[in-house]
Amino acid sequence: MKVLILNEGLEKLGHTEKRCAVSPSSVKRMVNRGVTVVVQKNAGVLSGYADADFTEVGASLVENADDALKETDLLLCVNQPEEAVYSQLKANAIVVGHIDPFFQQSLVESLAARKLTTLSVEMIPRSSRAQKMDALSSQASLAGYVMVMQATTHLPSILPMMMTPSGTIKPAKVYIIGAGVAGLQAIATAKRLGANVLAYDTRPVVAEQVESLGGKFLKIDLGETGQTKDGYAKELTDEQKQKQQDAQRDAIADSDIVITTAQLFGRRPPQLISKDTLALMRPGSVVVDMAATSGGNVEGSEPGKVVTVNGVTVIGTGNWSQSVAKDATDMYANNLYNLIDEFFDDESKAFKLDLEDEILAGCVITHDGEITNDMLKNAYQGA
Amino acid sequence: MKVLILNEGLEKLGHTEKRCAVSPSSVKRMVNRGVTVVVQKNAGVLSGYADADFTEVGASLVENADDALKETDLLLCVNQPEEAVYSQLKANAIVVGHIDPFFQQSLVESLAARKLTTLSVEMIPRSSRAQKMDALSSQASLAGYVMVMQATTHLPSILPMMMTPSGTIKPAKVYIIGAGVAGLQAIATAKRLGANVLAYDTRPVVAEQVESLGGKFLKIDLGETGQTKDGYAKELTDEQKQKQQDAQRDAIADSDIVITTAQLFGRRPPQLISKDTLALMRPGSVVVDMAATSGGNVEGSEPGKVVTVNGVTVIGTGNWSQSVAKDATDMYANNLYNLIDEFFDDESKAFKLDLEDEILAGCVITHDGEITNDMLKNAYQGA
Repeated sequence: MKVLILNEGLEKLGHTEKRCAVSPSSVKRMVNRGVTVVVQKNAGVLSGYADADFTEVGASLVENADDALKETDLLLCVNQPEEAVYSQLKANAIVVGHIDPFFQQSLVESLAARKLTTLSVEMIPRSSRAQKMDALSSQASLAGYVMVMQATTHLPSILPMMMTPSGTIKPAKVYIIGAGVAGLQAIATAKRLGANVLAYDTRPVVAEQVESLGGKFLKIDLGETGQTKDGYAKELTDEQKQKQQDAQRDAIADSDIVITTAQLFGRRPPQLISKDTLALMRPGSVVVDMAATSGGNVEGSEPGKVVTVNGVTVIGTGNWSQSVAKDATDMYANNLYNLIDEFFDDESKAFKLDLEDEILAGCVITHDGEITNDMLKNAYQGA
Repeated sequence: MKVLILNEGLEKLGHTEKRCAVSPSSVKRMVNRGVTVVVQKNAGVLSGYADADFTEVGASLVENADDALKETDLLLCVNQPEEAVYSQLKANAIVVGHIDPFFQQSLVESLAARKLTTLSVEMIPRSSRAQKMDALSSQASLAGYVMVMQATTHLPSILPMMMTPSGTIKPAKVYIIGAGVAGLQAIATAKRLGANVLAYDTRPVVAEQVESLGGKFLKIDLGETGQTKDGYAKELTDEQKQKQQDAQRDAIADSDIVITTAQLFGRRPPQLISKDTLALMRPGSVVVDMAATSGGNVEGSEPGKVVTVNGVTVIGTGNWSQSVAKDATDMYANNLYNLIDEFFDDESKAFKLDLEDEILAGCVITHDGEITNDMLKNAYQGA
């Protein structure tokens, strides 16, 4: 089996991808299983790995990937592959990456039309068996840390309490909306730094997790809510949304830092904070909009930018895990290795594409000329 | 007594001073004692205080300070006053600020020649009675926090250990040179964030403080060392310096983040890390040179800049406490209020300039046409 990893570190759409789909450790483990690994030159540079780090563990190196693409069985990507890339792959080659399939219908249709097998890491089920392959979770966890660090950089005060002969500084107040993987890591990081942390989630079931990290849980009575079988929060009714916004207004106005992490599976994220609510915060306060690059939780946030809205610094940087590109690469490379490991047939030395398996049934979105995922097909028809 | 605070927030020498010499709280306390406080418009804006915050507690506001300067008894500054400012003050007016007197001989001579009384906050003795006025310590404490936060922003990895189904990230290794006020706060902050912290200081006496914060203390046998009566480390012999550099090389090479905080009272800071030693660190590692703007602990650091030297990110930003300008202002304003409070005569409503008092004897550097500090006079004669 020939696996190819391209250098994705080229500026596209205003940002440079710093991560790589493999680490020296994941390459080593693949090579040990009898996989042929080809890495394009400089693929690891922006995540801290030199070409030699890969060749030392048995990868071969190419400058131009055109020849290698034609022979590739498995293309490991961080992002969506470009047409110039996937058009060179042979039929039935497997493409793995962040495909963003709900919002990339024409890409998915092209991949299907070319008879490529596409494995979307976003569609890996949230089961305990698939946890070790769950790239969304591994990157979200790092994002939680990074968002807190970026917020502290812009806040004109420190987070911990400081008692000195020159006076006492009170701990900062941090309010975190959404206690999923990213939110929980943000809570943990802000607590580590000594802040007072309040958190809210539409799923009351996570209150205990928030509290076990030392955060307080904001209780709002919304009536009936719940979570999907994938662990995402269900979308709220308009009345519930209004109730939620009203109850949160005081918490937001009283905070030095607010971090919003609300995402809905396969849909645009909900708007949680209006410009009017921002105006209630103290000047110099900081809001981080985790979803800024996919629609935004905060009115006025701008994807990829830090802006001031009604006196509040609103951070919409996005691509959070890239700020810690080395760890993000290590985790993502582990996720992809674990996926290969799970379905690798040691006898034939090939990836065994068992579409009956619940993991592959979830994340394989094109195969043999078809779009194979029902959720996607429904979404495309609804669009 | 008329106290004046100018708007120092104008770009000078490549940086904008964000701090202010008073906070609303310190103004309120002065007004309550019967002091007349005049604040120049926008003086607090960059530290998060609007003009109204000062007028509400009894300050009056001026746009142009020329008239106010002529009547001022006490000018509270963050930085050195400019000639256009101090030349308008009446004889025997008191000027308080960061004068940097060892390196500002001509300024100090001008202040003396104009018969101004200059109180240099850097010269406030390190006694327990003067602790509450110690601006160097209050700002250094914030600097310790800020340096760690800036280092984390540039490091391509996270600081804490993270154990996830996608793999385990080891805690980052942070090495801190110098365990004074800034160093100890840096140790505390890096420990909070979950890093492994090693620290070194030429004064073995601080080992216990390092360990009580959860850091490890690097032991190097230098023979006889010590500290001055002000708590600064004594300068080492050339042989001791070499021994120290050799012993630290391994610690530096093994670290993800190194923070240098070595300063010598009244002299240029020592160079602690050479470019050759930087080359031993892993690419992407981060070094923070606290002393970059006053000469530098790290070869290749540039004042006010973040540069890459032999693959290592070297942060020489300087003016650290300004990153948390609100807290820095609050602390500094408390320091100056505590100074006024200590020497305020409630009957005459005036600052009682008792030059026999050990605090004022230390920090008053010009008075009645003379330079009054012996250490300074000696330094100027030696220069």
